[in-house]
Amino acid sequence: MTNGAEKKEQVFLPITKYISPDNNNQITIGSSVSIEYNQNGQHVSQIDDKGLHNILVLTGYAIDESTGELVPTFDPCDYVKGILISGKILEGNPFKIIKIIGIPSNKLYIIRKKDVHGNINFSLPIKINQLSAGTYQVDLGNKVTSFESLNGDEATKIVNDVLAKIYKLSEQQKKKLYRDVEEIFNYYSIKSLKSNP
Amino acid sequence: MTNGAEKKEQVFLPITKYISPDNNNQITIGSSVSIEYNQNGQHVSQIDDKGLHNILVLTGYAIDESTGELVPTFDPCDYVKGILISGKILEGNPFKIIKIIGIPSNKLYIIRKKDVHGNINFSLPIKINQLSAGTYQVDLGNKVTSFESLNGDEATKIVNDVLAKIYKLSEQQKKKLYRDVEEIFNYYSIKSLKSNP
Repeated sequence: MTNGAEKKEQVFLPITKYISPDNNNQITIGSSVSIEYNQNGQHVSQIDDKGLHNILVLTGYAIDESTGELVPTFDPCDYVKGILISGKILEGNPFKIIKIIGIPSNKLYIIRKKDVHGNINFSLPIKINQLSAGTYQVDLGNKVTSFESLNGDEATKIVNDVLAKIYKLSEQQKKKLYRDVEEIFNYYSIKSLKSNP
Repeated sequence: MTNGAEKKEQVFLPITKYISPDNNNQITIGSSVSIEYNQNGQHVSQIDDKGLHNILVLTGYAIDESTGELVPTFDPCDYVKGILISGKILEGNPFKIIKIIGIPSNKLYIIRKKDVHGNINFSLPIKINQLSAGTYQVDLGNKVTSFESLNGDEATKIVNDVLAKIYKLSEQQKKKLYRDVEEIFNYYSIKSLKSNP
């Protein structure tokens, strides 16, 4: 028997410096990733008077900020934090998606946990190259990961441009979130050694 | 410039209860995975008088012991330990492979580290279903992971049947490894709730 609280399809939105809103309920991350959110959907990540809840920490991945894709690094020290929102990854870009279904919520590393039960179905934009049928490749040669955090201006922009639209926030709710977002979100990004002199 | 110590293609052999040797330098894991090793190859994981060195801990994965496939669980508490040996994953089975190239060795969580430099190219048998071009699926619904360790008999069998063949061990070398293998290797396996009453 599945738990009645099973959530509809969610998408993992990594919270980084390079997310920007489009019209039509879409958010662009880097050059290759575009996520459409459902403004009336039931998001796993929630905002209340105490701030943001149910933030997913994705361990063993780093984000390629230029393309917006998540890259498996096989290093348990790397992570990307983000929110799980009702929506989908739009196709047409040169990236692969893992459509993950029915992960028991207690398997996910969710911080500031509140009211999460049952299974969670979610998608994430992952970078894997297909060499041939059944054979995939991840190339980390000459790549390094670096720790990134958000400053006050970056956190303010994310709240005003992105979170306010997804969650239809009031001015007062926004004000309370600036500090929260700045303090919670940090992540590892992946860079080519050549572009990192 | 790449480091001159770059290793040739390696394969990740998870050390679990259900690995068994075939003829022709092949090792079968569960019903779906078969690995061919190169007996004269240069293995990243090495055996010396002090025991086994350069063991890879793959975090965020559990093994499906019935099929031998590694399953991404997105839980940073899950892991599978194994050895990196010169060889390849044989095809023809219903599983997908990620062929990972050029991962800097300092990104991998390697324990009992000894003489590992440069990049490591390795493959691992991973369970991902392809829904359509560029869209993949992992299904963990109604699955649980459980911690598994090896008892003395299981460790002895792994040394005699598998490690002795890969590394061409003498009787004395085998004797020294029994305890080492029993103490080092443990892992998380994934099971369906239904088959786990």
